[in-house]
Parts: sequence; C-alpha cells; structure tokens
Amino acid sequence: MEKFYYLDNAATTKVFEEVFNLMKQNNDELFYNPSASYSKALSAKKVLNDARKQLSNLLKATAGKFYFTSSATESNNTVFEGIHLRVGDEVLISKGEHPSVYNAAHRLEKKGIIVKDINLTENGLVDENHLTSLLTDKVKLVSIIHVSNETGAINDIKKLVKLVKTFNSKTIFHSDGVQAFGKIKVNLQDLGVDLYTVSAHKIYAPRGIAGLYVKTGVVIDSFIVGGGQEDNFRSSTENVAGAIAFAYSASKVLSEIDKNFDTVLTLKNEFLNKLKNSNINEFLKVNSNETNSPYILSLSFSKIKGEVLMYALEQDSIYVSTGSACSSKKAGNRILEAMGVSQDDVIGSLRVSFSPYFEYDLDYIVECFEKNVLRFEKNVNVKK
Amino acid sequence: MEKFYYLDNAATTKVFEEVFNLMKQNNDELFYNPSASYSKALSAKKVLNDARKQLSNLLKATAGKFYFTSSATESNNTVFEGIHLRVGDEVLISKGEHPSVYNAAHRLEKKGIIVKDINLTENGLVDENHLTSLLTDKVKLVSIIHVSNETGAINDIKKLVKLVKTFNSKTIFHSDGVQAFGKIKVNLQDLGVDLYTVSAHKIYAPRGIAGLYVKTGVVIDSFIVGGGQEDNFRSSTENVAGAIAFAYSASKVLSEIDKNFDTVLTLKNEFLNKLKNSNINEFLKVNSNETNSPYILSLSFSKIKGEVLMYALEQDSIYVSTGSACSSKKAGNRILEAMGVSQDDVIGSLRVSFSPYFEYDLDYIVECFEKNVLRFEKNVNVKK
Repeated sequence: MEKFYYLDNAATTKVFEEVFNLMKQNNDELFYNPSASYSKALSAKKVLNDARKQLSNLLKATAGKFYFTSSATESNNTVFEGIHLRVGDEVLISKGEHPSVYNAAHRLEKKGIIVKDINLTENGLVDENHLTSLLTDKVKLVSIIHVSNETGAINDIKKLVKLVKTFNSKTIFHSDGVQAFGKIKVNLQDLGVDLYTVSAHKIYAPRGIAGLYVKTGVVIDSFIVGGGQEDNFRSSTENVAGAIAFAYSASKVLSEIDKNFDTVLTLKNEFLNKLKNSNINEFLKVNSNETNSPYILSLSFSKIKGEVLMYALEQDSIYVSTGSACSSKKAGNRILEAMGVSQDDVIGSLRVSFSPYFEYDLDYIVECFEKNVLRFEKNVNVKK
Repeated sequence: MEKFYYLDNAATTKVFEEVFNLMKQNNDELFYNPSASYSKALSAKKVLNDARKQLSNLLKATAGKFYFTSSATESNNTVFEGIHLRVGDEVLISKGEHPSVYNAAHRLEKKGIIVKDINLTENGLVDENHLTSLLTDKVKLVSIIHVSNETGAINDIKKLVKLVKTFNSKTIFHSDGVQAFGKIKVNLQDLGVDLYTVSAHKIYAPRGIAGLYVKTGVVIDSFIVGGGQEDNFRSSTENVAGAIAFAYSASKVLSEIDKNFDTVLTLKNEFLNKLKNSNINEFLKVNSNETNSPYILSLSFSKIKGEVLMYALEQDSIYVSTGSACSSKKAGNRILEAMGVSQDDVIGSLRVSFSPYFEYDLDYIVECFEKNVLRFEKNVNVKK
C-alpha cells in the first residue's frame, strides 16, 4: 500500500470499518421510521434510545438529556438560537471558539443581543480575569470551548462554570466539546455545564450525526421544528444508523482512552523532540503548550507560509492542516492572533493532529519537514 | 425468510444494499475533510460537487444551486428562517403541508409575521380560489407541497407558481418535493419554483442527507452558520458519503421512474380493486383520488380506529401507517380534516405506501384486511 501519513485527524478522520456492518445490519433489520407506531418501529426507537443511553453514560450526562443532531455545528447553532435572549442581553464567548460558535453567537447582534469575546492567554486558554471583568447581570449565556481545535489548549471548564455560576447561578453555560469527547476524559456531571456539544465524525463515526446535551431545567427552544422528534426538541426522521454508529465509535474510543492518549502523547512528544534535534529547530515555534491535548499541535516555521509547507509535505504523502479545516478559507487565524502570536507565525502556522489508529513513521515525517523547510528557507522566491 | 409486507415507504424505506459499499469505498479512499486545502481534500470536494451536479441534473435545477442539508426538515426550516421577512409581511402555506413546513411557518408568528393557511379542496389539492383571494402585496413567501405525504395529491406547482408570480413576480415560491422527487417527474426549470426541498431517505439513501434548491437571485440567509461550507450557505463538515449515496439512489430511482411508477400504480389499483371486491367494501372509504401519486394511498374504514387496524395488520406482518409517521404523535389528522373528511373517517384512516423494490402478495394482504375489518366490525368492544 501507498505510504501515507494523515496528520489532520482534528478536521475529520476515517470511520471505523466495522461501523458500516452495523449500519447495514440496522438497515436489514430495523430500517423503520422510529416515529411510526407499530412494534418494528418501536424496536427502531428502542435502538435509538439505547444509543442515546450509551452516549449519555459515556458522557456522565446524568443530570440532563442527550439529544441527537446532524452535526456539532447544528448543536452550536441550536444553543444560540434556542436560549431565550432579549434585546440588551449579553452573551460571552471566548476568542478561541470554533467558527460555528463564533458565527452563531455574533449573528445574535442583529437581534440586539450584545456579544462579547473573552480574551485568551498566550497559552490559548480563556483569560479568567477578563472573563470576570465581563460578568454583569446582563450576561445570560457563556460559551467556552473545552479543547481548542487550533492549539489543543484545554480550558478548565469546571472552574469556569463555578466562576460564572458564583456570579449568577442563572447564567447558562455552554461548552463545545468536539475536540474533547473521546480524547480527554469528559464527565458532564463533574463539569457542571448546562449545554455540551459533541461530534461523531471526529471520533471514527460518520458525518450526519452529532449531539447536544441539555441539563434538566435549562429553558431552550427547538432550532429545527417539524414532526416533533427527539421529545419535540429536534425534528427530522431519526438517524438511527448514525446514532448506532456514533455510540459504537464513542464506546470503542472511550474503552481505549488511556492507551490512545498515551500513544498520541508519545507520538506528539517524539515528533517535537525529533524536530527540536533537527536542522530546522531554529525556525520552529511551538504554539501549543505541553499541557494541551496531545491530539492537536500548532506549529509555526517562521518565514515560511504554512500553506506552502503544507503543499510540499503533501508531495511526500504527509497531510497536515494550515489551521482548522472548518475555517481554512478564512484569511489569517483569529485564534492564534488572540494568543498574541506574531503575524508571521500566524501565516506560518500548521496544525498537526495524530490519531492512535493510524501508523506514523516519525523519522520519515521529520525528514520531510526538514527537507522542505530548509529548501524554502534557501529559496527567497517562496519566502513571504 | 419471514413473510413481510412493508406498506409504509412514504415514512422511510430501506437503503439500497450497494450504497453501503459506496460509502465504505469513499471512507477508504477519500475520507478527508473537503474544506481542507491539500489535493486529497480537493478530491473529496470534487466528489461532493459531482454528487451535487448529478442531483442538479436529475432535478433540472439549471437556474439555481442545489445545496446539501441534513434533512428535508432542515431544508424547510432554512426556507422560513432564511427568507427576509419583516413585521407585517405575510406568508401563505397550504393546509396540506408536512409538519416541518407547517411548524416552521407558524413559528414566524412570534416575530410578527402573518401566516395564513390556504384551504384544500376535497381532493386534497390547494384551493386555487382561496389562494387567489389571499394574495396581497404583503405576501412575500408562498409554500405549497408538491405531493401530499398524507394522500398523494399532486399540486400543479407550475400553474400555482404562475398564479402567484402573475400577481407579484417578487413573491418567493417554495415547494416541499419530498414525496415527489424520485416518484413523479420533477423538472425545476419547468416548475419555475424559487426553492425546492428534497430528501434522500425516502428514496433508498441514508438519513442525515437531503437538499434544498435555491434559484439564482433568491435572497436567503444561512440557517446553520459556522465554517462557511456549501458556498457559505450551510455550515458543517460536508457529508460526502451521504451525498454520494443520495446521488446514487436518486440516479437509480430516476433511471427506472416510469417502470417503478407503473409497478406501484398497478399494485395500488389491484389492491383497491381487491378491496372493493371483498366483503369489506361497504366499510371502505378511499381518501386519495385516482389522479394522485400511486405511492401514497389514504383509506378509511368507518367505525374502526386506524390505530387498531394497524396493530392488527402488524400481527400478520403487514406494516401500514395511521398517517404520516412524522406527525403520528399528533391527535387527529389536520390534512384529512382540511379536505372535509368526517371525523370518524379521519380517526379511521390508514396510509398505505407501496415501493417498487418490495414484494407484495396482494391476495394475502387483502385477506388480512378483510379478516381484521370484519372481526372488529363484529366486536363492539373495539369500536369507537
């Protein structure tokens, strides 16, 4: 087989092979519409609810309900459109949010809602002092990403929830956990969040299925209305096959979470060590902290455009990203800028995200980085 | 294999077996995020756009763009949330709309939009005189279902578009084509609609993928915002496998559309004839017209609850619906009522929807109908 090193798992990844058999089996046996009333349909509904229960258990979502959605982006949109907000109410989000939170939040400004962005520290974490300074009685909703999709920075959600709830226990707290669930341990009971977004396709399940946890008592309207599925919270014929796939992949990944974490941490550390011991160490800047999730590593090579290096690495069958794929069309990189990374290093940034389920030849990968960085450093034409 | 007669294909149906291989192949070769920039990702994007082009061609969607969504319900919500409407503007929908149109439209009332329901004729079609009487300069959006999910009634969308556009060429016209696409011939160029909703899971593709056609020039905002996918119209990591599956199933169904139509028409007519020649003819009322789509047949057996008959038929491995599954939890049946069907016949109604891809033993099926109807007619305990 062709040599191939996929380092963009934070964007999306390969679905576990066995998932297709599960979906096919569901299609053979229980393709029925779970909202029909005959017993075969009720069996389909039971399978859906078993998948929901499995995911709830994995998330320790005991204080609320796990709803299926079609994507994390939809889940995040549901939060900002669903929470009751009036003209003059304030919403706080961090400067480190994924575009689906960032854009869904700022869309509220058209309705007269005031949306404020919380600063990041140079480590990519939410600046707690700035958050504290922004807390007023008008703040109705706070949304802070759990693990940054750009740098892997892990916000201390439990502490941030306490900080916000101590000021005003009624403020709703949402966290986007797309890069957390399945990678670091997530216990919603312990975190104390009101709303939590998770995605399937980042953890080896198909696209078209995701979830939103809603704590009991949180008042939130439907975003997608219609036939009244999902307890009248999210309409659309239930994607049972997707739900089964999501529950399966999440269960598998979580049953191996410690082993996977160690594998990826070792890969990340060895990769960084090899880079630091190479001839391109002088050009290397690491934008991710040692305490970040090892699943996401942000690097910059000063004076080389990330894009140019990315295309060069692709010739060697190495696939990295110039920033989160979801926002790859955006010029610059809002999040690194908010961390105070220099403009040169923002433009020179690459995101490297390993998977415990892929093979990596780190010597070869670092060799290719070295070869290309040195080539571009010597060639003024491709310098910025 | 167990005897099994599935007559609820309008609710959902079985995915074509070969679709799983297509999705698996896509996962093996091109699982990449289509919004990433490296060439493998661009190949994934090309596959997505090829599926889009295929679906556009099948719909003759030459005057606009076909966008992928996660469900027809999402497509319909996108229409009502996306079209620019101000306080006092009017929206017209028919009384025969699917709950996703009905509820998405009436949700606008909270924003001060006036939503009016157009009457149905006794045949389940839009009452053109009533529509005409409701047209004012304030009407900005009209939404009329193409094929009724309750009765199979086929609205003459081309004529209705002309009627609306003749009054005011700027009025936006949307049609929900979920029960039309793949079953009767749909030519968007000819219909002249501005917006058209289609679904994948009703035509043997998986759930989690659907579409919305938007005519060039129609001003419509995004419903789901985020990373800017789908030309910045609908955000979320593109469901390439779903798109491939949708395009495949649609192509297959459309390549056989005449043959399938004849098969289903023959099944429906023979089924009705056998019922009419049976001992339960005196209890039978047919709510669907002969010119309706043969894919959906609404029947009532006076004095027997549809629900009771449905459960009885299930014991004989015959699966019918008491109304569209999407709204099966709703008491009564809004659409049959709007047609003037008596309350008894509304409660006694069943929906029968054949598929050209399943086998049916009509003698056995009618025998079971006969047996159960006669049993319940004699048993006062289960009468209403």
